[in-house]
Amino acid sequence: MPPFDAMAKITALTGFPEWLPEERLVEQRLLEQVRRNFELFGFTPLETRAVEPLDVLLKKGASDKEIYLLKRLHAEPGEDADLGLHFDLTVPFARYVTQHRGVLTFPFKRYQIQKVWRGERPQQGRYREFYQADVDVIGEGELSLHFDAEMALLLHEVVSGLPIPKIQLRINNRKVLEGFYRSLGLSNIADVLRSVDKLDKIGEAGVKQVLIGESGLNDVQADKCLALARIRGPGREVIEAVRALGESHELLEQGLGELGFVMGALEGLPEGAAIADLHIARGLDYYTGTVYEGVFVDHPQLGAVCSGGRYDNLASEDKHKLPGVGVSLGISRILGFLFGQGALKASRACPTAVLIALPSEELRPRCYELARQLRARGVPTEVFHAAQKFGKQIRYAEKKAIPYVLFPSESGAEVRDIRQGEQAPIDAASWLPSPEELSVQVVQLSTNAAP
Amino acid sequence: MPPFDAMAKITALTGFPEWLPEERLVEQRLLEQVRRNFELFGFTPLETRAVEPLDVLLKKGASDKEIYLLKRLHAEPGEDADLGLHFDLTVPFARYVTQHRGVLTFPFKRYQIQKVWRGERPQQGRYREFYQADVDVIGEGELSLHFDAEMALLLHEVVSGLPIPKIQLRINNRKVLEGFYRSLGLSNIADVLRSVDKLDKIGEAGVKQVLIGESGLNDVQADKCLALARIRGPGREVIEAVRALGESHELLEQGLGELGFVMGALEGLPEGAAIADLHIARGLDYYTGTVYEGVFVDHPQLGAVCSGGRYDNLASEDKHKLPGVGVSLGISRILGFLFGQGALKASRACPTAVLIALPSEELRPRCYELARQLRARGVPTEVFHAAQKFGKQIRYAEKKAIPYVLFPSESGAEVRDIRQGEQAPIDAASWLPSPEELSVQVVQLSTNAAP
Repeated sequence: MPPFDAMAKITALTGFPEWLPEERLVEQRLLEQVRRNFELFGFTPLETRAVEPLDVLLKKGASDKEIYLLKRLHAEPGEDADLGLHFDLTVPFARYVTQHRGVLTFPFKRYQIQKVWRGERPQQGRYREFYQADVDVIGEGELSLHFDAEMALLLHEVVSGLPIPKIQLRINNRKVLEGFYRSLGLSNIADVLRSVDKLDKIGEAGVKQVLIGESGLNDVQADKCLALARIRGPGREVIEAVRALGESHELLEQGLGELGFVMGALEGLPEGAAIADLHIARGLDYYTGTVYEGVFVDHPQLGAVCSGGRYDNLASEDKHKLPGVGVSLGISRILGFLFGQGALKASRACPTAVLIALPSEELRPRCYELARQLRARGVPTEVFHAAQKFGKQIRYAEKKAIPYVLFPSESGAEVRDIRQGEQAPIDAASWLPSPEELSVQVVQLSTNAAP
Repeated sequence: MPPFDAMAKITALTGFPEWLPEERLVEQRLLEQVRRNFELFGFTPLETRAVEPLDVLLKKGASDKEIYLLKRLHAEPGEDADLGLHFDLTVPFARYVTQHRGVLTFPFKRYQIQKVWRGERPQQGRYREFYQADVDVIGEGELSLHFDAEMALLLHEVVSGLPIPKIQLRINNRKVLEGFYRSLGLSNIADVLRSVDKLDKIGEAGVKQVLIGESGLNDVQADKCLALARIRGPGREVIEAVRALGESHELLEQGLGELGFVMGALEGLPEGAAIADLHIARGLDYYTGTVYEGVFVDHPQLGAVCSGGRYDNLASEDKHKLPGVGVSLGISRILGFLFGQGALKASRACPTAVLIALPSEELRPRCYELARQLRARGVPTEVFHAAQKFGKQIRYAEKKAIPYVLFPSESGAEVRDIRQGEQAPIDAASWLPSPEELSVQVVQLSTNAAP
């Protein structure tokens, strides 16, 4: 059994982020907080298999998606690779609800925190494996527009409690866009949506060029599309700004009604937390109404860190309408950025609050018993593995930033506070670390101060 | 955008288990408890990417492993499928430690709870995607045998706190087996190990047949192998039983010393919690010393529900020895069995403790405010989505087993205890559910009573 012989293979894979222990601790704590918040709103945890039949993945606007197909190493000749890794959590959730419709209680509310995969060519800055934290509700037959508003309120509540930069939620409605485009006489709606969606990346001139050159719009139509995309504002007044452009279509009216309703329900949020933004389109084809996109107010260049929308047909079958709405938080994208900025760190590199020093092999049973008692009181505790010099044992604690070292003797014990360097006798049967040292803390460092 | 048109595709995939919401709640709570216990022992959470280069996956005794290869849907001609999904969490962890050796503090202790995949042909009862919960420690240069004992103690501590049937841990040492076989003049050790490992499945006669027919042993050698495999017992006395078979080899002596040390350290465990069992071999080639296997005492037919061992060379490179030892808990295997037996259930099908009834659209803002206050007090709360008849709203709570429905009025509120059917006025500013109704409970139903 030879060891790994080629060090060359033991390197990072572009697009597959892996965190160091102190980073993973931050991610774990953050996911825990997100999970807890989703549950406070009554959403139930769900997981779907990582794998879907290829035709489920390709059914809904995913034909241009980069998917990883699975092929068995020992596949027999002619065996089809008809399974792929999911590229988001919405398509699998819609499939799950369709499959289990008979036993679920509707409206069915779930959250789902899992990795997703994109089979893209390796390129800098694009993840091929990443965490998403999704929260969705699917109704049977119908789904009240109130849920479109509640999703935005829930998302605001969740992200504003996290140790991350301030997020602005930008809201639009696909019906507004489609109705507006149809009023202009356009029919290649998906094309136009995708072009307008590139506004942040290629700017107005770039979008106009694509609209005219690739989507076949004339100059007036392209200008109107850009005029619509320019509209944004904190509340219902954007509705009037759209009307002022003079287009009219049944779908446009319906969309404006929905957008106005949702924005009205968000009036109680802090200023700037949510705005209507008519250039938000979202690339995915399955959205049919409200669409959301959240960006870091002070780091807009990062792009969307959360997103979502209403999908009326994704889970529906001919006889059974199962409309849904949901949002997704790009956990890996957010953390990758914040780790890169040095903006988040864990207060230590392990959960351990107390290291019990091992004075001698004879005292090992006593050390284990002290550890057992501390753990029973909820204190994460390690016993040092060898009866080495105390200086070496303390250095281990220092390297991992373990806050306390406990020195047992035959009958008593002393505790050293590693940061303050103080050591004092304790009552081992009742001693507890200070509450703020008991658990790993996520420390947020300022990144917004300097430009 | 047509809905899923072929209902045929919306079915379960053999080998890719998915739970219903009340089952996933059990899994989530159980994983949370496992995680908490691992952290109480000071192990730090880690995750590795799901994907490894194929040569990392194949390096260590995995050539006969069933691996899923990844291939991009839009792969260019000639593009290699050189990535595969990991089939366990030990190989990726060893790769991670090798890669990050310079920045980790040793002995490095981590736990890792992730899905793993096996690219097997679909067959009843075999999972192709499942959860493992692993805990390992890797040392730099050396790793004290105390860790082999601590892993067993930790595993006992963790599983005995879970709402699952009683587990017996069976412990052996690869050096005992290899030394014994070499003393018999055998050299195809891996072959013999694999054959003996089938004892539970094909019985003594079957193993003897394989040992003679496939591995080329003579009758006496095969009988000796079986005599060794028959030895099991609660403690160090098994060491003498092995010696009584009359074989001798340096490796055998070393292994017996290690096995005796580990069993000695476990003497404090309850009777039957851990035994030495000389027929445990574990299929994976990377184990070099201690091996563990845990089975449900009352359901041995299920096979190993946890397993692990010492691997001295998996992470090591020429100049840097990185020996490790760890155990893995087969979460999906355990839950799949217990769900199948109806042995575990969640006290309700969602986290929600309180449903706030919506009396009228006018009272919606007041309902949202009451929900906000309850959530701020840590109470998972939903507001019903429509001002339907109370009977319908109560039925929603009943279907999801939400324990309380809160009925707000202009000024006050009443709470109905759904199971007891009692309703009474409350002070909405301070009311709390009973502590046992606040969170979802995992309920263990007896499966051990009847034979």
